[in-house]
Amino acid sequence: MHHHILNVVEYSRVLSEVLSRVKPTDEEQKRILSVAERVVSAIRRRGGRFVDVVVAGSAARGTNLRGSSDVDVFLLYPRDVPREEMEREALEIGKSVSERYELRYAEHPYVTAFVDGVEVDVVPAYSIQPGEPIISATDRTPLHQRYVSQRLAEEQKDEVRLLKAFLKGIGVYGAEIRTEGFSGYLCELLIIHYGSFLGVLRAASRWRPPVFIDLEGRAAARFEDPLVVVDPVDPRRNVAAPVSLNSLAVFVAAAGEFLESPSLRFFFPDDAPLNPQHLKDIMLQRKTTYLFVLSSYPPGVSPDIVWGEIKRFSKYIRRRMEEYGYEVMNSAAWTDEKEHVALLVELAGGHTAFVVKRRGPPVFDRENSRRFLERHRDAFFGPYVEGGRWYVDVPRAVPSPEVAVYRTVVEAVQNRSVGRHVAGELSKGFEVVRGRAILPFYVRNRSFARWFSSFVVRRPPWLKR
Amino acid sequence: MHHHILNVVEYSRVLSEVLSRVKPTDEEQKRILSVAERVVSAIRRRGGRFVDVVVAGSAARGTNLRGSSDVDVFLLYPRDVPREEMEREALEIGKSVSERYELRYAEHPYVTAFVDGVEVDVVPAYSIQPGEPIISATDRTPLHQRYVSQRLAEEQKDEVRLLKAFLKGIGVYGAEIRTEGFSGYLCELLIIHYGSFLGVLRAASRWRPPVFIDLEGRAAARFEDPLVVVDPVDPRRNVAAPVSLNSLAVFVAAAGEFLESPSLRFFFPDDAPLNPQHLKDIMLQRKTTYLFVLSSYPPGVSPDIVWGEIKRFSKYIRRRMEEYGYEVMNSAAWTDEKEHVALLVELAGGHTAFVVKRRGPPVFDRENSRRFLERHRDAFFGPYVEGGRWYVDVPRAVPSPEVAVYRTVVEAVQNRSVGRHVAGELSKGFEVVRGRAILPFYVRNRSFARWFSSFVVRRPPWLKR
Repeated sequence: MHHHILNVVEYSRVLSEVLSRVKPTDEEQKRILSVAERVVSAIRRRGGRFVDVVVAGSAARGTNLRGSSDVDVFLLYPRDVPREEMEREALEIGKSVSERYELRYAEHPYVTAFVDGVEVDVVPAYSIQPGEPIISATDRTPLHQRYVSQRLAEEQKDEVRLLKAFLKGIGVYGAEIRTEGFSGYLCELLIIHYGSFLGVLRAASRWRPPVFIDLEGRAAARFEDPLVVVDPVDPRRNVAAPVSLNSLAVFVAAAGEFLESPSLRFFFPDDAPLNPQHLKDIMLQRKTTYLFVLSSYPPGVSPDIVWGEIKRFSKYIRRRMEEYGYEVMNSAAWTDEKEHVALLVELAGGHTAFVVKRRGPPVFDRENSRRFLERHRDAFFGPYVEGGRWYVDVPRAVPSPEVAVYRTVVEAVQNRSVGRHVAGELSKGFEVVRGRAILPFYVRNRSFARWFSSFVVRRPPWLKR
Repeated sequence: MHHHILNVVEYSRVLSEVLSRVKPTDEEQKRILSVAERVVSAIRRRGGRFVDVVVAGSAARGTNLRGSSDVDVFLLYPRDVPREEMEREALEIGKSVSERYELRYAEHPYVTAFVDGVEVDVVPAYSIQPGEPIISATDRTPLHQRYVSQRLAEEQKDEVRLLKAFLKGIGVYGAEIRTEGFSGYLCELLIIHYGSFLGVLRAASRWRPPVFIDLEGRAAARFEDPLVVVDPVDPRRNVAAPVSLNSLAVFVAAAGEFLESPSLRFFFPDDAPLNPQHLKDIMLQRKTTYLFVLSSYPPGVSPDIVWGEIKRFSKYIRRRMEEYGYEVMNSAAWTDEKEHVALLVELAGGHTAFVVKRRGPPVFDRENSRRFLERHRDAFFGPYVEGGRWYVDVPRAVPSPEVAVYRTVVEAVQNRSVGRHVAGELSKGFEVVRGRAILPFYVRNRSFARWFSSFVVRRPPWLKR
C-alpha cells in the first residue's frame, strides 16, 4: 500500500495552494466578525425576552470558506416562552438589524438581514443544556457551536476548510437532498476525531460501510445509515444521516485517489460544460437514447422539497420504462432551483418493434382457443400457431419511448406518484425531448449544460487517466 | 358445440368440389396403372433371384392425388440373398425398364424410370411376413401395401384423398423434416381408423396430445411423440413419429375451424407472395429488424439432411442472438432445395447502445477497486461511482445485430455448431442482409418470396377473419 508513505512535500505544496485559494482573506474575515459583533451588541441593547445571544455558523468558528461567509445569530429563549411569542419577537428584532432583509422559513420563520455585504440570519431557539431534550432542531445549533469551539484547536480550523473544499470539489459537500453529502458540522467533527485533513482522508480511504464514529462514546440509538457519526450533543442523532451510500463511496474513492496522487483537481475540478458539438459527438458515439422531461420549477417551494420530489420521480420513471420493456441505463433529475426542472432517462435500446408477440392458449384447449381467436379476430398479425399454441402479434401499447415517457408522466400526475409541487407544474405543462433535440435548451442554460455534461461524460473529473 | 351439427349440404358441396380438383382423372389413373402393369410383366418375364414383384404407392392403392402420381415397384428377395447382390440385380432390372432413368439413393440405391410420363421407382426389398423382423426400412412397404388394400374400403379411397389435400392445403402433408407432417400411409391409417375424412376431422378437433391410436391393439413399445399411430405391420413403430407438436396443432386447429365453417380455402390456400411494395409496407409497419443469412445449397445433398441442418442452425442463431442481448421474436430457415439456403431472425429491437454498463467492485473493496481502475484506465466512459460501486461503460462486443449474426455464423462454422453440409457452403461464402435490402432477392426468387410472405403475414390463410 504505497500511499501510506506520505510524500509530505507534495501534499503540503497542494494543500497550501488550496488554502491560499479557499481561506477567506483577513479583510473578509475581519469584516464578517465585526458585522456579527455589531449586530449582537445592537440586539443586546434593544433587549427582549431572550436570555442570551449567540453567534454561530462557520465564520464564527473560523471554519468558513472564502465567499460563502454568513453569520447566524441565535436568540436563546427560556423554555417557558411560547413558540409564537418567541417567533414574533425574533422576527421583529431581525427586521430591526438592517433595512435590507428577507423573511425565510425553516424550522422557525427567521430573518436574513444584509449588513455590509454579510448575510446575517437572526434565528430564535430555546436555550437548552447538552443532554436536555430539544424542542426544535434549531435548538441544537448553539450547542454545536459550543462543542466545536471547545474541541477544535486553532490549527485545525484550516484542516476543516481543506476537508470542506475537498468535499465540495468532488461534489459531496452539503447535507441537502440534492447532494446527500457531508454538512459543515460533520466536517468539523471528522477533523476533531481524526486530527487533520490527511488524517480524515487516510481513515476514509479504508472505510467499509457501515462506518461508526462516536466521539464521546455514548450513542443512544441504533443507526442504519452507511456512515454514522453520533452527535456529541445529542447521542440519539446521526450527524451523517444525510450522507447517501453513493456520496460516501465517492468520498472514499476520491480519498484513496488523492492519497495516491495529490492534485488540485480534487478541489478545483474542471466542470465547464462540453461545447455543443462535442456533446453531440459523444451522444452519437454512445448510440443510446436520451429522453428528457422538461417542466417548470414550482415557485416559492424550497429546493430540498423539490429535489426530494424529482429524485423520487426519477426512480419511478425508470421503473415504469422498464415495465414498458425498455432497457434503462441511467435515470436522473435536475433543477436549477429557480425556473426549470428536468428528468432524464437514458435507454440502451430506443428502437422497438411496433408489435409484441402475445402467447395464447394451447391449440388443444378448444374453449380457450375459441375465445382467443374470437378476441383477436382482427389482429394485426396472426393469430398463428407456434409450438402447439396460438400467438398473435399485437401493436405495442406504446409505440415509442417518447410516448412511454409521456404517458408515464401523465399517469404519475393522475395517480399522485409524483410529489405535489412538481405534479402541479407538470400538470400545467411539460415537454418530452429526445436526444439531440435538447441542444437548444443546453445552449441556453449553463447550469443544465454543466450537469448534463458530467452526466454524459460519466468519469469524475478527479479520476486520473 | 355447434359444429357437431353437420351441415351436410355445405360439407358435401365443398368436398365434392375438392375431389373434382384433386382426384386424378380416369385417363390419368388408367395410364398409371397400365404403366405399372406393363413394367411388372416385363420384370417378371426378365426374371431374377427375386421371389415376387409388388406394385406399391398411393396410385396402386387408389389414394393418390392428381399430378403426384408415381408408382413403386418392389422386387422382393428371400432373406438369404446378400444385400449387395440384391441391390446389383435390382439396379440392372430398374435400368432395363426404360431408356430414361435416374439413379437415386435411400435405404438402398434404386432406379427411377420414366415411362409414358409416369415415374416408376424400382426398389429392392426383403420379403418378410407381418411380425417378422425387418432388415431394412424398405422391407415394410410391401406389408403396408397389403394391409391398406385389405382394410381400406373402395369408398374410403376418396376420403384419403380429401384428407391428404386438406393436410397439403394447411401445410402439414409430408413426413420430411421440412414439413414434419403426416405421411400418405398415416392418412390411410387415419381413414381406416375413423372411417371418413369428416370422421378424422371430428376426432382431431378434440385431440389433446399425447394422442394414442393403435388400430390392431398390439403396441410393442413406449412412445414419447405427441401423436402416436402404431404401425399395424410393425407394433414397435410409430407411423406418426415425424409429426411435430406444431404440425399436430396446426391440424387440430384447422380441423376445428373447418368443421365450423367449411371452405375451399383450407384445400387451396392463397399462397401467392405479397407484391414487393406491400411487403415493404408490412415490414415498415412491424418496425422489427429482419436479418437474413443467405448461402448456397450444398449440391447433391438430400433435402431432408439440409433441412435438418438449417432448422437446427436456426435455433442456434436464435440462442446466440439472445446471448448477445437481442430480443428475438422469430427465427426460421428456408431452402429451395436446389440453389439457395436462407436463415432468418426477426428482432424486436434492432437498435442498441454502443456502450454496455459494466459493474465493478464496491468502492470500499480497495484491492479490487484498484485493479478495476487499472484495467479500465482508458475506458470510453467512466469509471464512475454509482450506488457505492464502480462502473464503466465499455463498447459493446458487437456494435450491431448484423455483426452479431455475422460473427455467430463464422463461429458456428468454426465450432461445428452447424451441420457439415451447410457449414461447407457457409465457409465458401454467405451474405448477411438486413430488412428491406432483401427485396432484390425476394423479387428474383418466387419460392423464397412465397415463404417469406407467409412468414411476415403470420396468419394462416385458412383462418377466417
